Amino acid sequence: MISADNYPSTALKEAVEAISSLPGVGKRSALRLALHLLKQPADKIHRFSAAIGGLADSVHYCKTCMMVSDGDTCSICADAKRDHDTICVVESVRDVMSIEATGQYHGVYHVLGGIISPIAGIGPSDLTIKELVERVSAGTEVILALSGDVEGETTSFYIYRQIAPSGCKVTTLARGLGFGDDLEYADSMTLGRSITNRQIFKP
Amino acid sequence: MISADNYPSTALKEAVEAISSLPGVGKRSALRLALHLLKQPADKIHRFSAAIGGLADSVHYCKTCMMVSDGDTCSICADAKRDHDTICVVESVRDVMSIEATGQYHGVYHVLGGIISPIAGIGPSDLTIKELVERVSAGTEVILALSGDVEGETTSFYIYRQIAPSGCKVTTLARGLGFGDDLEYADSMTLGRSITNRQIFKP
Repeated sequence: MISADNYPSTALKEAVEAISSLPGVGKRSALRLALHLLKQPADKIHRFSAAIGGLADSVHYCKTCMMVSDGDTCSICADAKRDHDTICVVESVRDVMSIEATGQYHGVYHVLGGIISPIAGIGPSDLTIKELVERVSAGTEVILALSGDVEGETTSFYIYRQIAPSGCKVTTLARGLGFGDDLEYADSMTLGRSITNRQIFKP
Repeated sequence: MISADNYPSTALKEAVEAISSLPGVGKRSALRLALHLLKQPADKIHRFSAAIGGLADSVHYCKTCMMVSDGDTCSICADAKRDHDTICVVESVRDVMSIEATGQYHGVYHVLGGIISPIAGIGPSDLTIKELVERVSAGTEVILALSGDVEGETTSFYIYRQIAPSGCKVTTLARGLGFGDDLEYADSMTLGRSITNRQIFKP
């Protein structure tokens, strides 16, 4: 009898197990995706497989900001038109992509590669904080663009203590109501902070 | 600026494009999954890539029933304890797995590899109907276990016309209310059919 753990083909089983190891993908979805791939021509499956393998073989990290890159220096760090004295510190590659998509930021980045989390066993030495300290001098502005939860605040505070002796300017993202948000639906923490940190009205 | 179509790394872009070609996976989910894979050790990424490649290289199809298999004959067709005179005709590999999971069926299968659908451009010659006709004789029972929509009914009718001359017995799945279903929530087509096809009460 073929059940959820008893596949008709070993190769199919291995593909389902690999796909279901992805976050948010269960065994049933993985089977659906594997059977979809199975219906594709062999060369398309090989291209898919090679693209995944490329994540291990062809992705480089920028030696300055630790962003994923095609070479030793990413396109942002290589761009002379950007402000190299403003460093935006983020948790992950995806945060860089989100901020770049706004088109509002013209400085450079520093990718920590995670966030301090005792529960997940991630300490300061697992992140690229040492590399950040080496980049910072008195003329630098460091923008701490980490999440607003306990881990984010802890990491921000730890980094602040490491870089403050250099005499650099340290800023953080503005927090408050989202653009177009309704007061009625805002949580009280956000609403409270947006009153405390109120800004001059510029009509 | 890095936007949705402007990735910091070519390899990352290729992985995201491959993953987002899967059904039901958008660009944002694909990026999330690719970045998750990127965080894994290289040997785990290689195993994942090899498992996908295995779908092209290591999956065989049973030469009798067209089910995916590790060799030329699947474990079901190779099983002498199963009833080889009862052939259950299904659309896909997944249907075989669903029926096997019930533990209620002891015959063999025939996987069509699709269903007749003029809209999707799938005709009888794209399916394994010719191979089914060759397996059928006067002593065979063929169970048409296709979906209950127009395409399923059309395919069932087409197959019936092809195999009826052999004198085989042709049956189809019972349709009616689901086990434990409430009359109140049943659609009228299902409820109507379950009255027309009512069965002797066996207490």
